[in-house]
Amino acid sequence: MRADGRTPDQLRPVTIERGWSAQAEGSALITVGGTRVLCTASFTNGVPRWLVGKGSGWVTAEYGMLPRSTNERMDRESVKGRVGGRTHEISRLIGRALRAVIDTKALGENTIKIDCDVLQADGGTRTASITGAYVALADAVEWGREKGFIGKKATALTDSLAAVSVGIVDGVPMLDLPYEEDSRAETDMNVVVTGSGKFVEVQGTAEAAPFDRAELDALLDLALGGCLSLSHLQREALGR
Amino acid sequence: MRADGRTPDQLRPVTIERGWSAQAEGSALITVGGTRVLCTASFTNGVPRWLVGKGSGWVTAEYGMLPRSTNERMDRESVKGRVGGRTHEISRLIGRALRAVIDTKALGENTIKIDCDVLQADGGTRTASITGAYVALADAVEWGREKGFIGKKATALTDSLAAVSVGIVDGVPMLDLPYEEDSRAETDMNVVVTGSGKFVEVQGTAEAAPFDRAELDALLDLALGGCLSLSHLQREALGR
Amino acid sequence: MRADGRTPDQLRPVTIERGWSAQAEGSALITVGGTRVLCTASFTNGVPRWLVGKGSGWVTAEYGMLPRSTNERMDRESVKGRVGGRTHEISRLIGRALRAVIDTKALGENTIKIDCDVLQADGGTRTASITGAYVALADAVEWGREKGFIGKKATALTDSLAAVSVGIVDGVPMLDLPYEEDSRAETDMNVVVTGSGKFVEVQGTAEAAPFDRAELDALLDLALGGCLSLSHLQREALGR
Amino acid sequence: MRADGRTPDQLRPVTIERGWSAQAEGSALITVGGTRVLCTASFTNGVPRWLVGKGSGWVTAEYGMLPRSTNERMDRESVKGRVGGRTHEISRLIGRALRAVIDTKALGENTIKIDCDVLQADGGTRTASITGAYVALADAVEWGREKGFIGKKATALTDSLAAVSVGIVDGVPMLDLPYEEDSRAETDMNVVVTGSGKFVEVQGTAEAAPFDRAELDALLDLALGGCLSLSHLQREALGR
Amino acid sequence: MRADGRTPDQLRPVTIERGWSAQAEGSALITVGGTRVLCTASFTNGVPRWLVGKGSGWVTAEYGMLPRSTNERMDRESVKGRVGGRTHEISRLIGRALRAVIDTKALGENTIKIDCDVLQADGGTRTASITGAYVALADAVEWGREKGFIGKKATALTDSLAAVSVGIVDGVPMLDLPYEEDSRAETDMNVVVTGSGKFVEVQGTAEAAPFDRAELDALLDLALGGCLSLSHLQREALGR
Amino acid sequence: MRADGRTPDQLRPVTIERGWSAQAEGSALITVGGTRVLCTASFTNGVPRWLVGKGSGWVTAEYGMLPRSTNERMDRESVKGRVGGRTHEISRLIGRALRAVIDTKALGENTIKIDCDVLQADGGTRTASITGAYVALADAVEWGREKGFIGKKATALTDSLAAVSVGIVDGVPMLDLPYEEDSRAETDMNVVVTGSGKFVEVQGTAEAAPFDRAELDALLDLALGGCLSLSHLQREALGR
Repeated sequence: MRADGRTPDQLRPVTIERGWSAQAEGSALITVGGTRVLCTASFTNGVPRWLVGKGSGWVTAEYGMLPRSTNERMDRESVKGRVGGRTHEISRLIGRALRAVIDTKALGENTIKIDCDVLQADGGTRTASITGAYVALADAVEWGREKGFIGKKATALTDSLAAVSVGIVDGVPMLDLPYEEDSRAETDMNVVVTGSGKFVEVQGTAEAAPFDRAELDALLDLALGGCLSLSHLQREALGR
Repeated sequence: MRADGRTPDQLRPVTIERGWSAQAEGSALITVGGTRVLCTASFTNGVPRWLVGKGSGWVTAEYGMLPRSTNERMDRESVKGRVGGRTHEISRLIGRALRAVIDTKALGENTIKIDCDVLQADGGTRTASITGAYVALADAVEWGREKGFIGKKATALTDSLAAVSVGIVDGVPMLDLPYEEDSRAETDMNVVVTGSGKFVEVQGTAEAAPFDRAELDALLDLALGGCLSLSHLQREALGR
Repeated sequence: MRADGRTPDQLRPVTIERGWSAQAEGSALITVGGTRVLCTASFTNGVPRWLVGKGSGWVTAEYGMLPRSTNERMDRESVKGRVGGRTHEISRLIGRALRAVIDTKALGENTIKIDCDVLQADGGTRTASITGAYVALADAVEWGREKGFIGKKATALTDSLAAVSVGIVDGVPMLDLPYEEDSRAETDMNVVVTGSGKFVEVQGTAEAAPFDRAELDALLDLALGGCLSLSHLQREALGR
Repeated sequence: MRADGRTPDQLRPVTIERGWSAQAEGSALITVGGTRVLCTASFTNGVPRWLVGKGSGWVTAEYGMLPRSTNERMDRESVKGRVGGRTHEISRLIGRALRAVIDTKALGENTIKIDCDVLQADGGTRTASITGAYVALADAVEWGREKGFIGKKATALTDSLAAVSVGIVDGVPMLDLPYEEDSRAETDMNVVVTGSGKFVEVQGTAEAAPFDRAELDALLDLALGGCLSLSHLQREALGR
Repeated sequence: MRADGRTPDQLRPVTIERGWSAQAEGSALITVGGTRVLCTASFTNGVPRWLVGKGSGWVTAEYGMLPRSTNERMDRESVKGRVGGRTHEISRLIGRALRAVIDTKALGENTIKIDCDVLQADGGTRTASITGAYVALADAVEWGREKGFIGKKATALTDSLAAVSVGIVDGVPMLDLPYEEDSRAETDMNVVVTGSGKFVEVQGTAEAAPFDRAELDALLDLALGGCLSLSHLQREALGR
Repeated sequence: MRADGRTPDQLRPVTIERGWSAQAEGSALITVGGTRVLCTASFTNGVPRWLVGKGSGWVTAEYGMLPRSTNERMDRESVKGRVGGRTHEISRLIGRALRAVIDTKALGENTIKIDCDVLQADGGTRTASITGAYVALADAVEWGREKGFIGKKATALTDSLAAVSVGIVDGVPMLDLPYEEDSRAETDMNVVVTGSGKFVEVQGTAEAAPFDRAELDALLDLALGGCLSLSHLQREALGR
């Protein structure tokens, strides 16, 4: 049993409030335990310069944290005048992962920009961002289809996408780590999985002790199970 | 009658969700029509270097907008690498206004940092920020008193504080302008008023046509009325 | 009587040296007591991208202080790598105020860029900047007309513009505060007024104590009187 | 057979010139096919502020590319005024990976700063950086021991460390991808492994197609084999 | 005869208004033809960190141009967010040159910061800056002596310092080039000379055609003559 | 005799490895004693915007130092977020000097970008950069001719170019100063000379004591001799 009463293979309570923003083409406020992320998807015609005229669209993402989303207030990156390495890394991860389930040809020369802003942080903000962003993205694609920017028959979204963190804490492989567990995990892994159960990203890091093949396998098993549950919640949120 | 059915002297629907954040010492999610601002107050011991050893505390503020809080997505200031002039100006306004109702001596050598992050924008974000920030500030002061950082008998907060925008639209002075009215106002004014009805800031700007003394007086009357109503809602939110 | 021998409603000695710069299309070195600001107006064909093809011109402004214009040397903003909030705020104020007396349609697709650089500072630098900038602007408009960039019959300048600071010091409303008075004022207000006596900006701030309606009225009276005198000096400088 | 004549499980030719720099406490110029990285290790007494007084040392890393290390010249990050996301990400990876084989307690309050500068790039620059950096780090630790900054009996380095890229190209899992293969790989994985064969980092990304468990397993097998060979070359370079 | 009626070895009209600024410890407004530079010297106790406790003082300089000091308006470096290469280069030159006539030991642990701001530019701004800065520096040293920060017997200034530009225009070596001549010079040289006739800086550049030893000698002769005249004017300005 | 056994007029051992980089159109790794600089020349079609349509080409340069090229590690300029004054100054010097031997008309509308990156520094990095850059430039010009971007009969390179430092150390004029001599030189001069023995740049600075005409002459003699030897080595490296 864990501090919050969960078994090692159990997710924290998850809710997805679809359409939280009145202005974005797609949006979701995702809550995973104490972590809350507002995900918006902005649909615009046109693509970055290096893609113009190639008949393909683009999906990109930016991640940010409100200064007091954490237990101690952080300085704003806008005030520091530069985006930190961790922020860059997570923004790139979210965009890359989402592009794995997008058929950019089917999207036409349109760009969908995802923004994931952490309103409250308690571990797993990057994986919650991906899980919420998929819902926002799905609605923005649908919006583009209704407006006629994407062809009626095009399957721009080829699969769904969810993500979860797993880790080894006190020697035990565990699913969906809150901050308290994450900060003392020996090994920490973020896994992004499609609705059909294939891997899109596997990022495992030995925080305190190198890990062997058996530990890696146990973590992958937990992550696949967790993502399956999240995919189910995404379908519910999208009314499918 | 205005586009949203209000009379010229009527506020939009206002709600103040006190304690929205689980982590900040004080917080409020304020909604004014389509404008939603998350205000947090972070209490820390110590003061900026130029105040050390003078026995006084400090209150300061930072304002920001999420990139898709607006109808068209804006670039992040962190990505642009600099905070824009408008952001600076509003951050300075919020901090200066709140200090007008703080007795910095009574606060002791402690700092309260206010963050106002606009989640959704539909006009009046700076005045909503001030009105919500007061509630967050009041709770942070109370937190400091409970923790013993502020003396039990000290009256660190000398008054309450609310703010509202007013303007002349189509020749008519009006209270609490949404974006649609604000963008075509001839004159636009932001007014910050204490609970006891005194002015803390009066910022009037002729956007399209210089204004005379009578117009100025009509706007000030509307603003005083609006702030009175907001002060009432603040007291309710704070359970007083 | 004030420290410098003036009555509460008296301006400091003001001189306006029109045409100080040999290179700018319009220029003025304004001296208000110990405050000296070099104002230049640069006329260029074309407008910012968002205005192209709309048949309108643009007026914008930038404000700066030399590092040793103040009593203690300040760091250069170029060396710090960012323009500070106060600088941004004043630049925006000057540009906005001047646009209130410009008919941008009559200006044609031309831009006038105002630069106000404080060579020596003793309070009231932003209001001196506006008062001096109007003279530089008037000459740049005239230059544009002589060169044929502005139509002969167009009235690009619809009125004149002057500005002054007022404040409550030791309980007494006073006109045109030098640094020494400004730094201990309870309330501080900058007022921008057209030659015909209408308000363009009213920016009042309770520095130490909130102010009531009667105090506000007294300050506005002083400001209107001061701006009337400044308008007179501007007409003299322009030889009208 | 691959374009360069290798079998799928074969490394490119690797050389490690230990002590290339006359000035650094440890250094290595590593060549992996057409990729050349200069790795230096700088030993300094003292630790970052957040570690002072805790009796532990620190290892950190920075990665960079010369502007013409690539086929088309890139702009310098110093000239752009900001370090890009990819650079940040790789710098963080190198530092984190090396810390997995450092006993920071045994290091004492000393810092070793690793610099990996890519002189020529042909794929696998981050993994070559880690492999070369380990050699530079080992020499800097030895230097610290000889100078008496690290205790004679302390085992500051707990294991060796090597890294390699693997990927699925045209459906075939392959070891050590040059740029040409990397740019058309369906899946791409960077793996960091200790001398004793345990994982420190596993970073797999579906570039073009999500991958299944069997593919993941095949890639991990290749990576473990490649790192074993690199560990052997490191021991030779270090004369062990 | 040159366009402005001078002979090749003649300076433009030079005036030095000593004490132009009411606030700086030393100041001079120098005019050389159409070039006007405001030079201030700020005296502060203490030295940069790397000099603390060594018993020596420091002199450093910063150079800047007002945006409309030139014929076409330039963007502000503060707005661009970085100081340009030319500005850096000239700031370094001015500081280095002035230190050649300062005995930093005699200065005590005090810093004099020179600011040279070009109000109007017509060639030779860096040499005018040095010539004017020497006057401001001399007054700041004297101020330090009167205030007791510099010993009564110390000779902090070991010599005077002046600078001038020379160049080859249309094959003829010429003294003190205005912008028009400078922009078409084949060779351009800035020379800094002490009051006793020794070189402190010689910076010659072949703009259009490499130059031989005889041309170099002719330019140095002109420069020595010009600096002699400037030294004389400096002594007059300082009332010696 | 000097510390390294040389006579005052002797160069350190110099080697030029032409074509060190497999990717650049021209490259050279130059070694001058303990100083090693990697010089690359990147050929691209097109010119900067201000040159478009004028039928001329452009040569420009950037200089950088690896963080541990020096005895103590320096911070990266990319991490500091700004290029320092010294770097700017040297980049400008290299570009300006090389343009003195380029006929930009003969180059056609093409740009050659030189990068000089110091891998190891022991004095004279800027002069070694120029000497090595000339070799890289010559190969890039040749590459452009072979590819048909430069006319077969055009003489884009009008002369060769070499550079060396000279200085007065302990009262003795000396050629090619290593760091140890450079840091205690009374006067320091960098001289750039064409293959035909004409001056392109003469930059002399009194570091500790102003210098007279005779000393200047002695330094120029040494520099001319040193550059003659370097020109010879360049011809050898280029196989001429």
